[in-house]
Amino acid sequence: MKLVTYVLDANTPREGGRAGVLLNDLVLDLASLGRWAAAREAAFARLSPGSEAPLPSTLLALLQEGAPAWERLRIAFALASQTEPAHLQSQEGLAFPLAQVRLRPPIPTPPTIRDFFAFEAHVRNARARSGLEVPPQWYQIPVFYFSNTSALYGHEEAVPYPRLSQALDYELEMAAVIGREGQDIAAEQAADYIAGYMIMNDWSARDLQLQEMAVQLGPAKGKDFATSFGPWLVTPDELQPYRRGSGSDERFALPMRARVNGVLLTEANFQEIYYTFPQMIERASQHVRLRPGDILGSGTCGGGCLLELGQERHRWLTVGDVVELEIAGLGLLRNTIVAPPSS
Amino acid sequence: MKLVTYVLDANTPREGGRAGVLLNDLVLDLASLGRWAAAREAAFARLSPGSEAPLPSTLLALLQEGAPAWERLRIAFALASQTEPAHLQSQEGLAFPLAQVRLRPPIPTPPTIRDFFAFEAHVRNARARSGLEVPPQWYQIPVFYFSNTSALYGHEEAVPYPRLSQALDYELEMAAVIGREGQDIAAEQAADYIAGYMIMNDWSARDLQLQEMAVQLGPAKGKDFATSFGPWLVTPDELQPYRRGSGSDERFALPMRARVNGVLLTEANFQEIYYTFPQMIERASQHVRLRPGDILGSGTCGGGCLLELGQERHRWLTVGDVVELEIAGLGLLRNTIVAPPSS
Repeated sequence: MKLVTYVLDANTPREGGRAGVLLNDLVLDLASLGRWAAAREAAFARLSPGSEAPLPSTLLALLQEGAPAWERLRIAFALASQTEPAHLQSQEGLAFPLAQVRLRPPIPTPPTIRDFFAFEAHVRNARARSGLEVPPQWYQIPVFYFSNTSALYGHEEAVPYPRLSQALDYELEMAAVIGREGQDIAAEQAADYIAGYMIMNDWSARDLQLQEMAVQLGPAKGKDFATSFGPWLVTPDELQPYRRGSGSDERFALPMRARVNGVLLTEANFQEIYYTFPQMIERASQHVRLRPGDILGSGTCGGGCLLELGQERHRWLTVGDVVELEIAGLGLLRNTIVAPPSS
Repeated sequence: MKLVTYVLDANTPREGGRAGVLLNDLVLDLASLGRWAAAREAAFARLSPGSEAPLPSTLLALLQEGAPAWERLRIAFALASQTEPAHLQSQEGLAFPLAQVRLRPPIPTPPTIRDFFAFEAHVRNARARSGLEVPPQWYQIPVFYFSNTSALYGHEEAVPYPRLSQALDYELEMAAVIGREGQDIAAEQAADYIAGYMIMNDWSARDLQLQEMAVQLGPAKGKDFATSFGPWLVTPDELQPYRRGSGSDERFALPMRARVNGVLLTEANFQEIYYTFPQMIERASQHVRLRPGDILGSGTCGGGCLLELGQERHRWLTVGDVVELEIAGLGLLRNTIVAPPSS
C-alpha cells in the first residue's frame, strides 16, 4: 500500500493533514474508508465493535495503534479495490482524485528524525572535497545525528530558500519509518519494526554546515530549515520484488535518481548502501526506546548531492529551481525552491 | 511559580504525568485547581465560559494554549495561596504533599531538544583533554545539536546505566523552555519566548561519544540514552532577583553545583555563560519554527562534568552513584544510576 497525508485546502495548518491510501489514482480518506467498510460489511464492522472510528485519521495514529489497525486497513482496502471507482467517488468525503489533493509529508509530526551516513561513496566523496579520508570509526558503527522535526515538506510543497545561506544543496536519501515501539532491537529482528519507506530530501546549506561543523557538534542549522519526505509511505511488501538478502543484511535493488530543472545529476542504487536499515535500527535502539513514527534517513547515496558533484557540474540551488528525487518503487518527490518569507 | 509534572503511581506510563503547581510543600493538580477555582469564584469562571477544563492537565497543553491559560493559572494560584492548606487538601484530587508524589521531567514529551555549547570554559577544558584549542567559529555563532526526546528523566527517577559504555559522566546545565511559537526571533525580543527554566543533566557516555564524533556528525549515542530535567519548571519572574543585563544580554547570577555521592565536584555560576538564552533562541529560530515545549540546553558550565575534572579527581560514574545538580532559584535535581534492563 501507498499511504499519504493530504489536505484539500492548502491553508490547512501544518499539523492538520489527514491520512489516505492510494488506490490507483484515487486517494481514499482513511477514516472515511473505515466508516464506509463498516457500513458495507458486517464482517469488517465486527473487527472494531463499538468503534465509531474503525480507521484512524492520521498515519501516526495508525502506527501507534499498530497490528489491529493495519489488519482493518488491509481488509477495508481490499473491499474498496473490488468496488467500482465511480461508487467510491459518489460517497461523501471518501475518494478524491490524486490530482485534486495536496500532499503533505506522510508523517507530519514524527517524534524524532535520525539521519545516518550509511553510503560509503558519499562519505568518501564529501570528505575528499575537504582533503580528508574516511575515518576508521565509520567502518565500526553506523553513525547518525538527530535532525529537526519542525520544518518538513511533502511532494510539490514549496521549500523556502534559507536566507542566511548562499550554498543550498539537495541530498537524495531513502527513509524508513518505525512502526512498533522497541528498545535494544537486534538487527536480525529489526525489519519487523519498519512500517514503510519513503524518499527523503535532506536539504543542506553547505556554508552554514561548514561553519558550525568546525565546532564538532555535527550539522544543525546546516540542515534544520527543511527536510522533504514523500510522495507517500510505501509498505515493505511493495518492495519485495527488489529485495536482496534478508535479516540484518536486507537490501533493496532500487535505482535512485536526482534531477535539477530536468537535468539528471545523480544516478545510484540503494543496494550500494554499506549499513542496512536493520543495522541502523539496532544502533538507534541501543539504550533507547524507538517510537512509532520515528524516521531514520539512510544518508545520501553516492553522488547524491551537489557537494559531491562539484560546482563545475552544477551551481548551488537558487529560488525557482525544481528538484526531483526518484527511487524505484517509492515514486518521485518534487519540490520547488521559493523566496524566503520576509522577516 | 514552580510547575511540575507528577504521578501518584510509579507505574504510570512515561507519557501519563499530570501538571501541577507548587504551593509551599503542596503540589496542586493543575486541572483540579482550575475546576476548584471556577466553582469558588464566579469571576474566575467567567474567564473560561463554557469550559469544563479551565486549566489543562499537562504543562505542554498549558504552553500551547499560551497567555489566556497563564492568566487563569495566575488567578487560580493566587486564590489557592489565600486559602487554608487544610481546606485545599480536603478537596478530592486537588492538593498532595510534595513528598507523596513522584516527579517526572516537567515537559515529558518536548517537540525537540537542542543542546548548545555556550560556556567558553567547558569548550576550552573539554577540547584541551584532546590537545585541541577552541575553534574560531565558536566565537562567531552559538552552536548546538539536536538530542533525543525519548529518554527523559525527572527528579529522583532512576537512570539506567548505558550497558555499552564504560565511561558514564554527568553534565551540569541550565535549560530554557519555549512558551510561544516563533520563527526568525531577534535576540532582543527572545526573552519573551521563554516560559521557564529548569536544571538539566545531559548524561554522557564518553567512550561512545568519542568513537562516533570521529565521524563528525556530532554526539548521538553518546548522549541519547538519558537526559534529566527538573525538579520543576521555574517561571522567569522568579529569577528576577538574579537578573544581570537585559534584552539580548540577559544573564542570571545563579551559583551552580554538582555533587556525586555527596562530594562537591563542580562550582560555577550561570553568569559565566558566553552566549545568552536570547542569543541561542535567535540562532535556533533562524529559518525554523520554534514550538511551545521546545527545550534549549545551555551546554555544560565550566568544570561541570568529569571529563573536564579528570579521572584523577573522580572516576567515571557507576551503578549506585547519586548525582545531585543544584542551581540557585531552580532547586536540586537528584538521580541515582541503576543497573540497565537485561535485554
